[in-house]
Amino acid sequence: MSLLENLNWRYATKKYDPTRKVAQEDVDKIVEAARLAPTSSGLQQFRVIVVSNQELKEKMVPIAWGQEIMAEASHVLVFAAWDRYTEERIDKIYDYTTDERGLPRGRFGSYTDKLKAAYLPQTAEENFVHTARQAYIAFGLAIAQAAELKVDCTPVEGFTTEELDELLDLKSKGLKSVTMLPIGYRDNEDWLAPMKKVRNPKEEFVIEY
Amino acid sequence: MSLLENLNWRYATKKYDPTRKVAQEDVDKIVEAARLAPTSSGLQQFRVIVVSNQELKEKMVPIAWGQEIMAEASHVLVFAAWDRYTEERIDKIYDYTTDERGLPRGRFGSYTDKLKAAYLPQTAEENFVHTARQAYIAFGLAIAQAAELKVDCTPVEGFTTEELDELLDLKSKGLKSVTMLPIGYRDNEDWLAPMKKVRNPKEEFVIEY
Repeated sequence: MSLLENLNWRYATKKYDPTRKVAQEDVDKIVEAARLAPTSSGLQQFRVIVVSNQELKEKMVPIAWGQEIMAEASHVLVFAAWDRYTEERIDKIYDYTTDERGLPRGRFGSYTDKLKAAYLPQTAEENFVHTARQAYIAFGLAIAQAAELKVDCTPVEGFTTEELDELLDLKSKGLKSVTMLPIGYRDNEDWLAPMKKVRNPKEEFVIEY
Repeated sequence: MSLLENLNWRYATKKYDPTRKVAQEDVDKIVEAARLAPTSSGLQQFRVIVVSNQELKEKMVPIAWGQEIMAEASHVLVFAAWDRYTEERIDKIYDYTTDERGLPRGRFGSYTDKLKAAYLPQTAEENFVHTARQAYIAFGLAIAQAAELKVDCTPVEGFTTEELDELLDLKSKGLKSVTMLPIGYRDNEDWLAPMKKVRNPKEEFVIEY
């Protein structure tokens, strides 16, 4: 099926069948789509945390303001972005990239100098506005990959980020949570499943010049 | 080809063949993938501006800090998000959704009341941090759709947003530009085309619980 068919198939699942688990092979593909996402300057300013532990998922229910899908879904993917830019983080990615491409380290030095001059004087909050945006590109691709595999998922922004960061020990990793994506298989009684998908009509959505 | 194969095929094109144009049918599919993107609370807080006019594309070069791809690419898609939340905007989407689903208007009134209570007291800047994030989900899906069609594209954040907003008259539409996506066909001499795609290795990218 094409991407458009897959996007029409998917919906934000509101009730999961807790007895059905997503195969590890499919979880890996969803994570891989996120890993392949483009990011600003190739910095890959985010990570994906895959939670399959039932106890942890149950602790996520109150953090996600009572949403039972956190516990019912097979896995919960958490997208977390760098809490700030640092010289070391920028250099590490670029050193790895030049090594992998068989280029001398520092080959992109004038470019990384520009990045450092732009980001390092900003506050951590300003940095995070930017790093978090990158995680959303990958979030979109993970949703598309789940749909291709006919795995249901639910994009979730409604949660208390500080509490989730604490639960998953993200601060020590230099990360802050951005979004969550429970994945699994829909329950047949999900009220939203039979509803028509509604989007802004094309003529309102697109402006042409 | 699968999404993962398409994501491995694509790269951030640095030089386009200016003689090759993307067929309207393919442009429509790329826009449609963006239109189908999930958004927070289904509010669809963004629009896509499709620029094919050569004069306008040339004016985008200095706005994008000298990047010639703006003029060389076949089309430039601009992702622009609501400059702020308003009661009218929230109601309009929900009225449309209930109408399309054959439900009484106000069916989700307690939910939209919560959204208004959360967003309306925020500053426009705080609102825009959130609306812009939604545009990135669609940005990711548009990139995936282009790759499926073997259309090249370049995710572009490097531009002066205020100047682009002015050029495209976005302020009067209640929008602010977020990202750009030139689309077209790579030039055979693009220096980046033969380079290895490099991403954080999976063991560093994923954290498992």
